[in-house]
Amino acid sequence: MDKYRHWHQTSFKVRDYECDLQGRVNNSVYGNYFEHSRHEFLLFKGIDFAELCEQKIHLVVRHLEIDYLKSLSSRDEFTVFTKVEPQGRLKVLFHQHLLSNLPADEHDLKEQNNPSRILYAKAIVTGVAVNEKGKPFIPDVFQKMI
Amino acid sequence: MDKYRHWHQTSFKVRDYECDLQGRVNNSVYGNYFEHSRHEFLLFKGIDFAELCEQKIHLVVRHLEIDYLKSLSSRDEFTVFTKVEPQGRLKVLFHQHLLSNLPADEHDLKEQNNPSRILYAKAIVTGVAVNEKGKPFIPDVFQKMI
Amino acid sequence: MDKYRHWHQTSFKVRDYECDLQGRVNNSVYGNYFEHSRHEFLLFKGIDFAELCEQKIHLVVRHLEIDYLKSLSSRDEFTVFTKVEPQGRLKVLFHQHLLSNLPADEHDLKEQNNPSRILYAKAIVTGVAVNEKGKPFIPDVFQKMI
Amino acid sequence: MDKYRHWHQTSFKVRDYECDLQGRVNNSVYGNYFEHSRHEFLLFKGIDFAELCEQKIHLVVRHLEIDYLKSLSSRDEFTVFTKVEPQGRLKVLFHQHLLSNLPADEHDLKEQNNPSRILYAKAIVTGVAVNEKGKPFIPDVFQKMI
Repeated sequence: MDKYRHWHQTSFKVRDYECDLQGRVNNSVYGNYFEHSRHEFLLFKGIDFAELCEQKIHLVVRHLEIDYLKSLSSRDEFTVFTKVEPQGRLKVLFHQHLLSNLPADEHDLKEQNNPSRILYAKAIVTGVAVNEKGKPFIPDVFQKMI
Repeated sequence: MDKYRHWHQTSFKVRDYECDLQGRVNNSVYGNYFEHSRHEFLLFKGIDFAELCEQKIHLVVRHLEIDYLKSLSSRDEFTVFTKVEPQGRLKVLFHQHLLSNLPADEHDLKEQNNPSRILYAKAIVTGVAVNEKGKPFIPDVFQKMI
Repeated sequence: MDKYRHWHQTSFKVRDYECDLQGRVNNSVYGNYFEHSRHEFLLFKGIDFAELCEQKIHLVVRHLEIDYLKSLSSRDEFTVFTKVEPQGRLKVLFHQHLLSNLPADEHDLKEQNNPSRILYAKAIVTGVAVNEKGKPFIPDVFQKMI
Repeated sequence: MDKYRHWHQTSFKVRDYECDLQGRVNNSVYGNYFEHSRHEFLLFKGIDFAELCEQKIHLVVRHLEIDYLKSLSSRDEFTVFTKVEPQGRLKVLFHQHLLSNLPADEHDLKEQNNPSRILYAKAIVTGVAVNEKGKPFIPDVFQKMI
């Protein structure tokens, strides 16, 4: 997994209430997984989303794109890898990949280059900070992020 | 609203539990709105998503793109407009626009061409039918859809 | 439906994303239905939940009880009936019944006394108002509610 | 924590999308936490909820009671403790307590008897197994559960 060495990681296990009629995780729930992973990434960078809300600094999503490659089901364990890059002066771009966890018995041997991880989904998310009136601006926290 | 004359319509009202820390509808919930609108569109075409599930015909989303233009808040009432077009032999493309409802007092006068409706979000969703083994195929219902 | 003549009503249609692995509406979603119905009831009484939040007046649930009598499934249409009564000096008690809608063809004939409505679920919810420090108090809006 | 020595434990961290307008975890989400904890408990006992669904054995909730004692907020980490007892011949009763995790620095010293854990919520859930026609019965798995 050399590719993801510098990406932030958040681990999950599918919860049954996230599955729908088809017996698979509902499409919209991937949006939840990706959001939680972004907020964990922000916390890791010293940025607390909930605190920003109270200061009326709103980090909002302008554009979201998800590729669904394989369906998640009950009991699946997986990790979302997140990295960020600036886009223009006011926006940031999050790249997020959702991969299966390493099978327990392969964890030690193949830690860095494991072909058996499955790529379930990929997201690209464009974020921007807006003030109370909805105007985009560059908050101090952006410097911490990138 | 000439533009949407031939689009299918599903109406909603924001529910408070759909709003998050920011006091606005959470991004992932738009995914729910768009999904429900697609399923209502399918029902209108005589296609019952839940029944298909029981027949092991799975309509799945391969790609989702959402543009967030303006935030929905508590009490907002809105309509999702949906239309579909074929993409290649195996896929269908849904175009979905989420607009504010007409203000009640303007409803009669301006029914067909109303500049005061607000476009909140737009989605493009690529769907495909897969069998139990996950192989794409063309189910009979596709003919009803388009 | 003489019994419910003075209860507030909120109508719903099951959305497929609310159904889980069992092909039925997930238990927790009933909590959403009941909450939305309480907030609609409050609005009807002139009380705006979201506005109260901004004024740091928090209406919170202390106790929730739900009886699940019959499962809701895809496409079901139903109504939540809500009434409220004071409990002691600081609390209010919501009684909520979730019933199937009238079948369309029976709507006219049996409007007031229809034996064919199905009772899906019942809830009793104890609410209290707390200030920013979490202390219970009696807000002015309580007088409007009851 | 002697009291909970024989209870099953499932750990969680609040995700921001689970918080609502009030900046606290929405009431219905506690239903999700308790459900996921019951399913983890069942897995621990060798009972796979999703597999049972496929065999048309449905474990369903008949009655749910939640006491909300303190609100969960962004970043809170907590554990749901679950135990089960039979109720009559056909039902099982789950007792579930949601407590804050031990502060990291107190973890070693006070592992077994920690006064600083906070009780956020308690649930009592009555479950029953029903066949495809909705009739209650005693599945073999009940013996594993208790």
